[in-house]
Amino acid sequence: MHMVFENPTIREILDRYKQIWALRHASALMDWDVQTYMPPQGIEHRSIAIAQLSLLSQKFITDPSFIALVEKAEGAELNDYERGVVRVLKREIKYNTKIPPKLLEEITVTTQEATVAWREAREKSNFSLFRPRLEKIIELSRQVAEKLGYEKHPYNALLDLYEEGFTVADADAIFSKLVPSLRSIINRQKMPPHSPLEDVKYERGPAEAMINDILRTMGYDFNRFRVDVSPHPFTIGLGPRDVRITVRYEGIDFKRVLFSAIHEGGHALYELQLDESLAMTPIFDGASMGIHESQSRFWENIVGRSKPFVEAMYPIMKKHLGFLNAYSPSDLYIYFNTVKPSLIRVDADEVTYNMHIAVRYELEKLMLTGEIKVSDLPELWNRKMEEYLGIHPSNDAEGVLQDIHWSQGSIGYFPTYTLGNLVAAMVGHFAGKLLDEVAELKFDGLKAWLREKIHRYGATYDPKTLLKKSFGESYNPDYLINYLSRKYL
Amino acid sequence: MHMVFENPTIREILDRYKQIWALRHASALMDWDVQTYMPPQGIEHRSIAIAQLSLLSQKFITDPSFIALVEKAEGAELNDYERGVVRVLKREIKYNTKIPPKLLEEITVTTQEATVAWREAREKSNFSLFRPRLEKIIELSRQVAEKLGYEKHPYNALLDLYEEGFTVADADAIFSKLVPSLRSIINRQKMPPHSPLEDVKYERGPAEAMINDILRTMGYDFNRFRVDVSPHPFTIGLGPRDVRITVRYEGIDFKRVLFSAIHEGGHALYELQLDESLAMTPIFDGASMGIHESQSRFWENIVGRSKPFVEAMYPIMKKHLGFLNAYSPSDLYIYFNTVKPSLIRVDADEVTYNMHIAVRYELEKLMLTGEIKVSDLPELWNRKMEEYLGIHPSNDAEGVLQDIHWSQGSIGYFPTYTLGNLVAAMVGHFAGKLLDEVAELKFDGLKAWLREKIHRYGATYDPKTLLKKSFGESYNPDYLINYLSRKYL
Repeated sequence: MHMVFENPTIREILDRYKQIWALRHASALMDWDVQTYMPPQGIEHRSIAIAQLSLLSQKFITDPSFIALVEKAEGAELNDYERGVVRVLKREIKYNTKIPPKLLEEITVTTQEATVAWREAREKSNFSLFRPRLEKIIELSRQVAEKLGYEKHPYNALLDLYEEGFTVADADAIFSKLVPSLRSIINRQKMPPHSPLEDVKYERGPAEAMINDILRTMGYDFNRFRVDVSPHPFTIGLGPRDVRITVRYEGIDFKRVLFSAIHEGGHALYELQLDESLAMTPIFDGASMGIHESQSRFWENIVGRSKPFVEAMYPIMKKHLGFLNAYSPSDLYIYFNTVKPSLIRVDADEVTYNMHIAVRYELEKLMLTGEIKVSDLPELWNRKMEEYLGIHPSNDAEGVLQDIHWSQGSIGYFPTYTLGNLVAAMVGHFAGKLLDEVAELKFDGLKAWLREKIHRYGATYDPKTLLKKSFGESYNPDYLINYLSRKYL
Repeated sequence: MHMVFENPTIREILDRYKQIWALRHASALMDWDVQTYMPPQGIEHRSIAIAQLSLLSQKFITDPSFIALVEKAEGAELNDYERGVVRVLKREIKYNTKIPPKLLEEITVTTQEATVAWREAREKSNFSLFRPRLEKIIELSRQVAEKLGYEKHPYNALLDLYEEGFTVADADAIFSKLVPSLRSIINRQKMPPHSPLEDVKYERGPAEAMINDILRTMGYDFNRFRVDVSPHPFTIGLGPRDVRITVRYEGIDFKRVLFSAIHEGGHALYELQLDESLAMTPIFDGASMGIHESQSRFWENIVGRSKPFVEAMYPIMKKHLGFLNAYSPSDLYIYFNTVKPSLIRVDADEVTYNMHIAVRYELEKLMLTGEIKVSDLPELWNRKMEEYLGIHPSNDAEGVLQDIHWSQGSIGYFPTYTLGNLVAAMVGHFAGKLLDEVAELKFDGLKAWLREKIHRYGATYDPKTLLKKSFGESYNPDYLINYLSRKYL
């Protein structure tokens, strides 16, 4: 990709963008530090610094002369990468100019307070403590949708923030096909609901060594990658050669830390395989939340929970975790693939997981239009859980209050989890025989293919265009249904 | 200190300064990360981000409307803190407006190349590889002095960059008194030149536990302080409640890591005890390099190497480092206080240390005026070492090439090390009986006194004014001479 950016206006834009990139790079590091090493009392001034830098980059993005440059570029003859730059910047400019500063500030204040209220509400399992905040958040989300504009459904404006071009029509088509198929698989599958390994304790030291050993075996180069510890696992890309993940060692049920490491590793691989000539530009990023999630789910579920992977990694796991001597690779495979309708989304297996998302998607959509009231939410939640998974939360903490997302104002985000699963299955299908190499702990072919099909482009294309270009079709739930059927039936 | 900043122009300045503070906070964290956790290959893009943020804050500092505000404030009736803000900002504005961007850039490029050349020159012990770079650096330093302007001696302009108001006349007065006294103490003192403990190896784990234990005993609160590992120990203040130090575990001669932790801890205490109402302002900083160094040297030498401290900490050290069971507190005291003229500054004891600085001070001064040529430097260096310490480097690596400072363009910085020692002894003198409490591992009184006398003010006053205000006199070498005489004769 010699001379990716040739258009002089684009080059001028990218030259100015470098400043914005630097501010975001710094903010990303500050976020990482908050989650990993910052002394607890540092948070007050850190928050001020993050807010100041965010104000600055917002100012640069909405600078009239910058906007004029982007508009000028739009009229020029551009290659795909250059068009990608314009597309991504226009989205940013749109958000930052259409949403009035007063509304942006109100969202910030409301969600900060709501997150505190949500924590207390969940602790006390008392939805009424959270209800007024959520009502406010829904109201603000409605305003955002109105300001951004939409066709057909206000929820489309919000979905588009997380998954460009993804609509209610798309989501309805997906869930209406997915839900009955999943229900059928859940009812017919035969995996045990529990494994004795779930109750086995482990020491952090050996588990850490195992994680590092597995990641090295998968080819992660620790000269441009690292693993730290944080309360909530995440991945952060600080540049083409500085990508970091975090994990959490709970001391029991080691598959949790193992698969969260492989999951974050999948996100990290995407960031590590973005084309370096796109570095420090607006398209040096994943194509969307859903595509990013597809990479983590692909490695976590399609590869990591597969028989060949489990069998091939078994000796490495056993080397570090002595208690595994009492278990066979097949015990391990079962442990990694138990299936059981459960109340908590983050603990759900890959079969039942998307049912949790379906519940949230439907409720979000109805809340936004006012078809249902926030005050009725707990009851509706429980009814949906009953309908989709046949189980009933005994309180709101394990029901409607379990997720942090709504308190943070993330309305429209949940569906990208299902898109992640769905695209992961597409990737698994089209990877074909490359998946077989996993049995020999060979990952280079698969990684090169992922780079070619998805990673290298960054956000050059919107997600639907990327999928069509690489696989000939957009979000298609059939691959996920086929994959789950083949694996569990 | 209710309502420290009342003047409306000052408040406007500080409001705008918050952005600059945030950029510097971010840059500081990026620097810290480079030294501690960043994957090695992250350096290329990190350097770009740091340069971009530095350009931005320079732009804000030299914005004509910002300069106009500072000039306006200067004419108003201000309290000490407000005057401090104006004083510090005027220094920054002066530097950034008087030095042309072209010269600044030339310095950046030259010092980057010079640092690489210096590393190679030191490795090969070949001064000629470094000579042309150093010549260029001296020439650029001369230009900086001319641009900044000075009275009497161009070196004054450079000294002032690191130690505001400190001059060649001050330094000459100090060294002319210090050097003969030190020579006499070195010749007459009776401490052994070597301790068997220097050759004892240690494991990192227990040493780390010991360092943490000692720092906790000294009252460091790990909710606002932390210790990491880096190739070169340093301290970084990221805010009033986020101050970090680093140390290096070499696995042998544990006093090195111990005293570097106590040294950095002294720097950290200064940052931790700055008055919080000055946070995010230009005066939330040490008064000068020398005053900052005095705080680290005070804790390292005056407190840390004292008999009461060694005796009181002995049980803690022994608890972690089992091999100390074979040694008495008095063995430990000797180990911590051996005296021996040596070639390498960073390994020098507190008696011979300032002789190393005298050598560098004299050579810098003469190089700058052109009284000596860079090409004659190795020979002059060796002659001075002979004259001051009676020893002779066998090659340039252990002579003129040992320090990184000149390659980084830091001409005028070395004298602040001696100022640090000198002020540390003043602090020790005026602390008086508070030092006795160390024997009972009580540090609160001493810390409160340091806060009151020095720390709380930050950079409100220039260093000479601060010293006069707190101790009734400015840099006075007598206290250091008395302290060393009392301890070693």
